[in-house]
Amino acid sequence: MEKFQTPKGTRDFLPEEMIRRQFVMNRIASVFERFGFGPFNTPAFEDFDLLAAKSGEDVKRQIYDFEDKAGRRLGLRFDLTVPMSRVVANNPQLTKPFKRYAIASVWRYEEVTAARKREFWQCDADVVGSSSMEADVECIAAAIDCFRKLGFKKFSVAVNNRKVLDGFIEVVEADKNKNLDIFRAIDKLKKFSQESVRDELKKSGLNEQQVTKLFELTSASFAGGKILLKDNSIGKEGIIELEEIIKFAKIYGIDKMLKVDFSLARGLDYYTGPIFEIVIKGYEKYGSVAGGGRYDKLIETFGGRPTPATGISLGIERIIEVMEQEKMFKVDKSSVKVFVTSINEKVKADAVRIAQKLRDNNVNCQVDLMNRGLGKQLEYANNIGIPFVIIVGEKEIKKKKFKLRDMKKKSEKELSLEQIIKNLK
Amino acid sequence: MEKFQTPKGTRDFLPEEMIRRQFVMNRIASVFERFGFGPFNTPAFEDFDLLAAKSGEDVKRQIYDFEDKAGRRLGLRFDLTVPMSRVVANNPQLTKPFKRYAIASVWRYEEVTAARKREFWQCDADVVGSSSMEADVECIAAAIDCFRKLGFKKFSVAVNNRKVLDGFIEVVEADKNKNLDIFRAIDKLKKFSQESVRDELKKSGLNEQQVTKLFELTSASFAGGKILLKDNSIGKEGIIELEEIIKFAKIYGIDKMLKVDFSLARGLDYYTGPIFEIVIKGYEKYGSVAGGGRYDKLIETFGGRPTPATGISLGIERIIEVMEQEKMFKVDKSSVKVFVTSINEKVKADAVRIAQKLRDNNVNCQVDLMNRGLGKQLEYANNIGIPFVIIVGEKEIKKKKFKLRDMKKKSEKELSLEQIIKNLK
Repeated sequence: MEKFQTPKGTRDFLPEEMIRRQFVMNRIASVFERFGFGPFNTPAFEDFDLLAAKSGEDVKRQIYDFEDKAGRRLGLRFDLTVPMSRVVANNPQLTKPFKRYAIASVWRYEEVTAARKREFWQCDADVVGSSSMEADVECIAAAIDCFRKLGFKKFSVAVNNRKVLDGFIEVVEADKNKNLDIFRAIDKLKKFSQESVRDELKKSGLNEQQVTKLFELTSASFAGGKILLKDNSIGKEGIIELEEIIKFAKIYGIDKMLKVDFSLARGLDYYTGPIFEIVIKGYEKYGSVAGGGRYDKLIETFGGRPTPATGISLGIERIIEVMEQEKMFKVDKSSVKVFVTSINEKVKADAVRIAQKLRDNNVNCQVDLMNRGLGKQLEYANNIGIPFVIIVGEKEIKKKKFKLRDMKKKSEKELSLEQIIKNLK
Repeated sequence: MEKFQTPKGTRDFLPEEMIRRQFVMNRIASVFERFGFGPFNTPAFEDFDLLAAKSGEDVKRQIYDFEDKAGRRLGLRFDLTVPMSRVVANNPQLTKPFKRYAIASVWRYEEVTAARKREFWQCDADVVGSSSMEADVECIAAAIDCFRKLGFKKFSVAVNNRKVLDGFIEVVEADKNKNLDIFRAIDKLKKFSQESVRDELKKSGLNEQQVTKLFELTSASFAGGKILLKDNSIGKEGIIELEEIIKFAKIYGIDKMLKVDFSLARGLDYYTGPIFEIVIKGYEKYGSVAGGGRYDKLIETFGGRPTPATGISLGIERIIEVMEQEKMFKVDKSSVKVFVTSINEKVKADAVRIAQKLRDNNVNCQVDLMNRGLGKQLEYANNIGIPFVIIVGEKEIKKKKFKLRDMKKKSEKELSLEQIIKNLK
């Protein structure tokens, strides 16, 4: 039979890589739990119409959709916010605020590049049921803390507000029905040239003058924006929310890294208020590592009661990539701490007994399962990166002293089992 | 918009339930790591032909299959063994034995019942590259240890060998090409009446006499089976392997719970040697909670080098079900340990500062995000099951002493923040 490859855009994770990924995910999960977010999970697939409802055209085209054997049209989830909003819509009895985090894979049929896959992980934390800007700030603060716990030091948080952008659209007298197209175009300002964004905006019905005016607005300072929007009611609402964000950012000690950026738009359709993106200082070339915003209408859209909500999504794949590139991982290659050799079949039972004792003391270990000689056993331990080896032979068993070999330092100590356990902890 | 439900056979897991599921999964993962299995992950979907190759007809019909946007025929994985075998086939350089565990969801389009879902989790541990029966026994021993760490005490392990069953087919002179159909029929002996299995066996070409003879063989004792197979070479190989299993079971201290059961067949097509199932004593009505076996040909089937392999799969959904039913979970309802109230807006910054301090000391906590009064804050903490509350008011801040309220005992203590941290740890 021919060999099968992983489907395009997907990956296998062998233990060495999984150890690093789990390290990142576990750190993030524990920070989210410190901030009072609870664990949460939803199915891999959903009703296609749910996924398509508020995803926006670009993402909608990327949904892996299929029919099940009863003809139901389903799709693999493309994010974790839409399924969570469905759950809240279906469970009005949930105590508010409802704070949940989720770390799970999502799927998008995208152009595959080195950085962009079709199956990738997302880490989200959301606060549902609070209209206070404190909720938004808490999400940002939690994300910053995640990055700190992973070894990063300095951050820059860009914030904007969809209401401000709505105000801009009114100020330039553009077609309100095209606001999502316009947002998506503005969102590209950071990645593409002003010229190409200008062309895209023209497709949404803006003339040369309107585009120029819009660019003037999106590049204004916070103070400048306040003046430009002073006669626009929706825009002013957005400004007030941004001031609230800044107020709470001071309380949460993250105000210094905050910067209002009127050109921030974000790609998804469902945002209604504050939007934000985090960049790690010194690592700007990797782009933003977290982003999110408020989506006060989404739960209602899915048939729920009107429920304000906000959240942040950490770009875990990008974070792992940065940490790999910058050699920030300090974790072992193997999750196994020690290999318990047996120099012949007669000592097998003793080697297993020693391994069990180590396991009872929370030490990860392996014994030989191949009936190999000592040399091969040592070679194996070395190959998979097990840092320690215990030599078990008949003499050692009689003396109740065993050689503990440090595979990196290439040094040996003769120790009792109790001493070995202490040494390995 | 109408409400969307979860697709049939799938579930949402809210934090209260997820906490219990994570408890089980984390315990299992740490036991597998103690036994030297490394973490591992593969994509949710695979090439359909890979999944269909050795799944057997019943499972093949249950695969969620679909075409991606480039016309590739894909399917959601129905187990974790097939994807892992593909990885090993594609990576001949992997150091052997390759020991991995995986805890992940799989999908099968089955008839949905209270116990049987279409999306469910599996926990697998496999040893690849060892033909020694010690590898099989280690998998069983690791599974037993998982159950012990979850609070279960006594176990019964049924073992058989596909080579013994091949021997039986030769002894009754049945059609060898029908062996998989015959195995699947035998596998139903524990769940269905002998009569219905008899009918099914007849469909595989066995006559009345052959069925009677086969039932006699499958109900024989180990000693009896040895005699019945003494002139059958493949059957005798199976018997020798079973004796090896028993030898290693003694070394691993699990021989007392082992029982050879010639009627054990298991449903999957890919087994080639020992097969086994674990039942928890006292909880037999829930059926087996783990099962597995040796599949020495599977990796070769997927284009890899001939590579012996064995593994065990824990029925995590069933285990969670048993623990729920038997009220074995001792975990908190909420992952949040303490709610830091603020009696008015003036103390907000202090409440947040206290929460940050708690978080720095690894205490999971929440602050009020709804700008609510103290009464509502306490009601919220009580509703979601947060066990402790700290009362933060202006007096308390001045005195640097805060009331720590135990929500279950309904008792209060006045303590400094340092004392509170000690108390909560």
